[in-house]
Amino acid sequence: MSKPLILVINDDGIHAPGLRALIKAVRQLGDLVIVAPDKPMSGMSHAVTLNTPLRVHKLKEEEGYAEYSCNGTPADCAKLGHKAIIGRKPDLLVSGINHGSNASVNVVYSGTMAAVIEGAMENVPSIGFSLNDYSINADFSKCEPYILSIARKVLENGLPDYTCLNVNIPAVNGSPIKGIKIVRQALAYWEESFEHRKDPHERDYFWLSGTFRNRDNGEDTDEWALRNNYVSVVPLHFDLTSHKTIPLLRDWETGNLN
Amino acid sequence: MSKPLILVINDDGIHAPGLRALIKAVRQLGDLVIVAPDKPMSGMSHAVTLNTPLRVHKLKEEEGYAEYSCNGTPADCAKLGHKAIIGRKPDLLVSGINHGSNASVNVVYSGTMAAVIEGAMENVPSIGFSLNDYSINADFSKCEPYILSIARKVLENGLPDYTCLNVNIPAVNGSPIKGIKIVRQALAYWEESFEHRKDPHERDYFWLSGTFRNRDNGEDTDEWALRNNYVSVVPLHFDLTSHKTIPLLRDWETGNLN
Repeated sequence: MSKPLILVINDDGIHAPGLRALIKAVRQLGDLVIVAPDKPMSGMSHAVTLNTPLRVHKLKEEEGYAEYSCNGTPADCAKLGHKAIIGRKPDLLVSGINHGSNASVNVVYSGTMAAVIEGAMENVPSIGFSLNDYSINADFSKCEPYILSIARKVLENGLPDYTCLNVNIPAVNGSPIKGIKIVRQALAYWEESFEHRKDPHERDYFWLSGTFRNRDNGEDTDEWALRNNYVSVVPLHFDLTSHKTIPLLRDWETGNLN
Repeated sequence: MSKPLILVINDDGIHAPGLRALIKAVRQLGDLVIVAPDKPMSGMSHAVTLNTPLRVHKLKEEEGYAEYSCNGTPADCAKLGHKAIIGRKPDLLVSGINHGSNASVNVVYSGTMAAVIEGAMENVPSIGFSLNDYSINADFSKCEPYILSIARKVLENGLPDYTCLNVNIPAVNGSPIKGIKIVRQALAYWEESFEHRKDPHERDYFWLSGTFRNRDNGEDTDEWALRNNYVSVVPLHFDLTSHKTIPLLRDWETGNLN
């Protein structure tokens, strides 16, 4: 039986330590094609590059392993890796390890998770990994047994159609990770503040900044799992419909108004 | 009673005809603050600007009306408009009119709809409008009665918490729009192709291109409504959890693996 072919993406860029830790882990599971942005692309969400040509550089190639950088976004890297570089459906797509949380509402802003949702759109079994540790010396190595456990289960069992996984690993210092919980996305938000400054030419500018606020204390949420030292696994889809709202708006339907 | 305060955003940029048509329509409903990108930002999805200062230029101010351009993304414009320019919760956020479809899976890539989802995160009643006409001479004026009908209902009734609306208006030529349908997001995808070219220096580059493919013939979908000359209204939320998948993965839970 041939080895699984695994497409590896991230949003922190080709040189990020989190990507190296992910490569080290999944190298044990199959052949790898890495396609990563040539610079950090955090907060790029599902942006795609429509007005600029995409450039791809092959950085390394050996038996069962090839590594490329790309000037595009994480979603571009997922599309390019699948359609232009590999040219067939990979057996697995993994993205990360993101340097910081993609739990709860962070998933909406995440380039790491956009690459994973791209995979789900193409029905490629896809998993995003994030370590909820913002320290410059974050220790990605402790993620490995959880990456292997989850990636092996996905390779063996697949995932439901058009579904992918958002895996967040807690920042624990000293205390052990307690295990894996299957949970839902917590309802949270970023409370933005804009720092208003003047540049040396007396022109105004703003820095976007914010504080994460959780509105959801459910024990079935990713935020609860992470706060309690569990790895959170949220199955995601890309149907944004609020189905329960549809019947509430039914009487807004009209005929022609022109 | 004071007039409603309406925040107006788009992703095609401050000079786009679709924005002008939206302003003309909603000017009848309240006071307006427009915050739009200073250049086209299609396909930017929910990207936010974390590494570059945001600049805002006031272009116009008169009684009940102010217009600003910003160097950020549509999501930045929504955040800045609400938090740094208005400084209080607007009564309504509208975005568009997008030049092209944001129905079905397009919502994931859309800057127009990211601004609307930003509104929902802050519990501001928010609506995105798109005209499914890619022609350079697209006639945005026929959208007005539908914009007014839907925006008035939202101003009167509000929307459920953390919910917003994705409104798409069909490209009809000659035949009349039949009315408004409340529907769900169709399951569709973009079949990408990458055009591989050589630049004048013999270096490779790729253009991202693609064909829209609908996998979903449900008569309760936005794609069905639009194909049948109805305006589609999809209520959206930002919980990406595939709730039905959670019980299927329950036995993937483990204890500590380190």
